[in-house]
Amino acid sequence: MPHPIIFDTDPGVDDAQAIAIALRHPEIELLGMTTTYGNVDVATATRNALLLAELAGQAVPVAQGAAGPLVKPRHPAPAHIHGANGLGDIELPTVKGKADPRSAAQFIVDTVNARPGDVTLVTVGPVGNLAAALQLDPGLIEKVRQVVVMGGSIREGGNVTPVAEANMFNDPDAAARVLTAGWPLTLVGLDVTHRCVLTQSHMDRIEAGQGRPLGRVLAESYAFYRNFYREFLGIDGCCPHDSCALAWLLRPDLFTTARGHLGVATSGIAEGQTVFAPEGRGFIETRWSGTPLVDVCLGVDGDAVSEWIADTLT
Amino acid sequence: MPHPIIFDTDPGVDDAQAIAIALRHPEIELLGMTTTYGNVDVATATRNALLLAELAGQAVPVAQGAAGPLVKPRHPAPAHIHGANGLGDIELPTVKGKADPRSAAQFIVDTVNARPGDVTLVTVGPVGNLAAALQLDPGLIEKVRQVVVMGGSIREGGNVTPVAEANMFNDPDAAARVLTAGWPLTLVGLDVTHRCVLTQSHMDRIEAGQGRPLGRVLAESYAFYRNFYREFLGIDGCCPHDSCALAWLLRPDLFTTARGHLGVATSGIAEGQTVFAPEGRGFIETRWSGTPLVDVCLGVDGDAVSEWIADTLT
Repeated sequence: MPHPIIFDTDPGVDDAQAIAIALRHPEIELLGMTTTYGNVDVATATRNALLLAELAGQAVPVAQGAAGPLVKPRHPAPAHIHGANGLGDIELPTVKGKADPRSAAQFIVDTVNARPGDVTLVTVGPVGNLAAALQLDPGLIEKVRQVVVMGGSIREGGNVTPVAEANMFNDPDAAARVLTAGWPLTLVGLDVTHRCVLTQSHMDRIEAGQGRPLGRVLAESYAFYRNFYREFLGIDGCCPHDSCALAWLLRPDLFTTARGHLGVATSGIAEGQTVFAPEGRGFIETRWSGTPLVDVCLGVDGDAVSEWIADTLT
Repeated sequence: MPHPIIFDTDPGVDDAQAIAIALRHPEIELLGMTTTYGNVDVATATRNALLLAELAGQAVPVAQGAAGPLVKPRHPAPAHIHGANGLGDIELPTVKGKADPRSAAQFIVDTVNARPGDVTLVTVGPVGNLAAALQLDPGLIEKVRQVVVMGGSIREGGNVTPVAEANMFNDPDAAARVLTAGWPLTLVGLDVTHRCVLTQSHMDRIEAGQGRPLGRVLAESYAFYRNFYREFLGIDGCCPHDSCALAWLLRPDLFTTARGHLGVATSGIAEGQTVFAPEGRGFIETRWSGTPLVDVCLGVDGDAVSEWIADTLT
């Protein structure tokens, strides 16, 4: 039984790798992609999503969504990480297709309602589109199969602040809404994505396995992204953050999770931090156990996930 | 050369152990104690500080301070941890002495100004007295020798919320002031105090070594505190949080520290969390590197610290 998914994304180099997995893996039925600002502006995200589907020779609807956060001002896109074009500033072919006329939120609402109980939402950028979809149809919480969120950090610390991960920091108000909505939800955050490293040798296999032209885009954008990891983090390779969300969906056996209550700090110096209270643990006030239970990934066999990514794309 | 210190405290069972060390250790010159609410109300804290000095046969000034937080409402004292009387609800002798007529903050200002450059402030409760002292005399930041704060948590998570340690949570506004004041400061938080366990066998040695009546108070209050650790945390023994601040002062070789910028979340679900940005690490905004550099303890030889405590009190 394949997983019908909507992939909510801001591609982005590691998004592109995950999109390639979603397009190729036999156990995933990619119903559509919804786009958001984040790694790039939303128009560029839409162009990249359309392009990657075309390069894979697949017709997949792409619906454009949030151009910025719910409340706070938008931060500049991190061109030093993903390139100004989101794909390592490599030369890109022209896109032939067009985006779906609906907003990302409406696309999510329509698609989930057409197959109640079936659809998994996988979101790997700031989560404004999911928050907007909940505003259109609060009943989604009963109708999705599950929600997988790449973002946040429980014990690992942050990547854009000492305590906040980029997707959560980019729209903490939307994140607070989405993570406490009450739908079945798993957080796939830095606690696991930082344990996974996609190496040059993995990418050599992927490039050969994908063939041109998609293999070239993945390999060349990886090279740009890898420079960032080498220069700023001292890591030889890249963390395949967004692919980890799909790895969790298809290979949960590679992860360890904990169940509990999750919140997001929406202001102050901890803004964007995900705060996790394990189920049953008592604290000084009841506010930390006032939200619905969710699952968070805390551990992973990182080597196995990286191998799974390379195997899937080879 | 002994360290002249003011010990700012809310005794409290683990405070009592630390006070016994401060009263006894030849390398500490205990200039006075200042008291605050926290583990108990401030009047009880003052009574306990006076009592412990009397039981040790020493005349040490005790100046009473903050009865509650700077901004937020006061939380109830945790009688299930320290007992309603702060010392495990054991029977206590009557106190003969009286508190110093000055406020804790004034006592700190007077004492530091009498020996500029000499005095170390060791604070092991909510830090309102230090914030109040800074308000009386902002020049203290140049006149103290150093400030050692038992409180906070960098990577360990919290004890009263998922992310906040009790002393910081009890007065996050005062903590934000004190931790960013610009004086030479070291944070001794849960990252190290949770690595130290004072066992029954350590306490047996301490009780025998101290003799009655101080040994009895330490041993019987420990027994109460230990029940809390067993029942709520599943630990056989107690974390000697407050003694760790003195261990750091006298045996820094047992600790590993990091230098960086420290802030405290003052509201929202991360309220009371200490947020640490390592020196030189870049983040998305400059606000996390806008505060003076401090040191935080991140690692410790916990067994050696527990042995040091027992040896000191034997």
